[in-house]
Amino acid sequence: MSAHRSWQGKVFIATSLDGYIARVDGDIAWLTDPPPNAGHAKPHAGQPVIPGYEEHLASVDHLVMGRGTYEKVLTFGFWPYPQQQVIVLSRTLATDDSRVTVATSTEEALTLLAERGSTAVYVDGGKVIQDWLRRGLIDDIVLTRAPVLLGRGIPLFGPLDTDVHLIHLATTFNDTGMTSSHYRVAVPTGIG
Amino acid sequence: MSAHRSWQGKVFIATSLDGYIARVDGDIAWLTDPPPNAGHAKPHAGQPVIPGYEEHLASVDHLVMGRGTYEKVLTFGFWPYPQQQVIVLSRTLATDDSRVTVATSTEEALTLLAERGSTAVYVDGGKVIQDWLRRGLIDDIVLTRAPVLLGRGIPLFGPLDTDVHLIHLATTFNDTGMTSSHYRVAVPTGIG
Repeated sequence: MSAHRSWQGKVFIATSLDGYIARVDGDIAWLTDPPPNAGHAKPHAGQPVIPGYEEHLASVDHLVMGRGTYEKVLTFGFWPYPQQQVIVLSRTLATDDSRVTVATSTEEALTLLAERGSTAVYVDGGKVIQDWLRRGLIDDIVLTRAPVLLGRGIPLFGPLDTDVHLIHLATTFNDTGMTSSHYRVAVPTGIG
Repeated sequence: MSAHRSWQGKVFIATSLDGYIARVDGDIAWLTDPPPNAGHAKPHAGQPVIPGYEEHLASVDHLVMGRGTYEKVLTFGFWPYPQQQVIVLSRTLATDDSRVTVATSTEEALTLLAERGSTAVYVDGGKVIQDWLRRGLIDDIVLTRAPVLLGRGIPLFGPLDTDVHLIHLATTFNDTGMTSSHYRVAVPTGIG
């Protein structure tokens, strides 16, 4: 499949240290409004550079997300993807929102991306990320970890049919205790 | 509880990027014998220092582990804790292994640690780590992440009654793609 793709699939996401992207009810205040703590290590000279969110967003021409993520985005009060085309994966969503295209299946989304000549796709939302990892449609992951254990919530990762090996490109951290690692998905042995 | 402890509870453990300490069948070859890959980032000058395993082990006078971890250790062919006293938590284990003391409850283990004046305890094994995190008995965590997604396995973290906030002390990586982060468990707000 990846040999036929024109685009890179990119994940840029944050989780708790125990791997949750949100609490069970969708709350992410633990990420966006964490308790202040002066004890976190300070970044130091010579830390590697990892793409920031603005750089990541500017690098993609499309987003693909599930309905849950789309509905979360609608609560933001502004539309955060002015330069990107957005595909919402949903079998049932009916909308006249001209900022998005609804695809009723992954195959339909892939056809759209091919027709439009996409070069880079920001894949977002836990379910879509899990499914596209299983399908070999993810090439690049920037994963940020917040310094908290939640104990339960909506997990980022899920079941896979085979191991997914990653190439570690860089790891950095900031003074709020967040660490970020940048990985490239390794081509499965035997394909390259 | 922590105000009455003489010892620090320490975790030093590795997981896959999706949070598993072993496959469902206990296999850890993905960690101990990973596929070679020349593409991982090289460590660089100025990386922070994190306690290595030898340093960690030398810093503790006791280990506490579950029966599963104890039985895994027995398969190693050597006894890796020559300088430490080892407490195995098990309600049913009968053994004449003079290298360990069996405690049939956490309370019994805590009494032993207090009687012996322990100053630092290496808490090991997924179930014991999860339970002792819930009980507020863990103070220090060094967590290494291997650059692989397994999709399923034995998870390191589990349910908690409340969030556990962590202070990020340092993060580093090596040229096999492993990242390591050192955290201190924050004292819960309202207790300090």
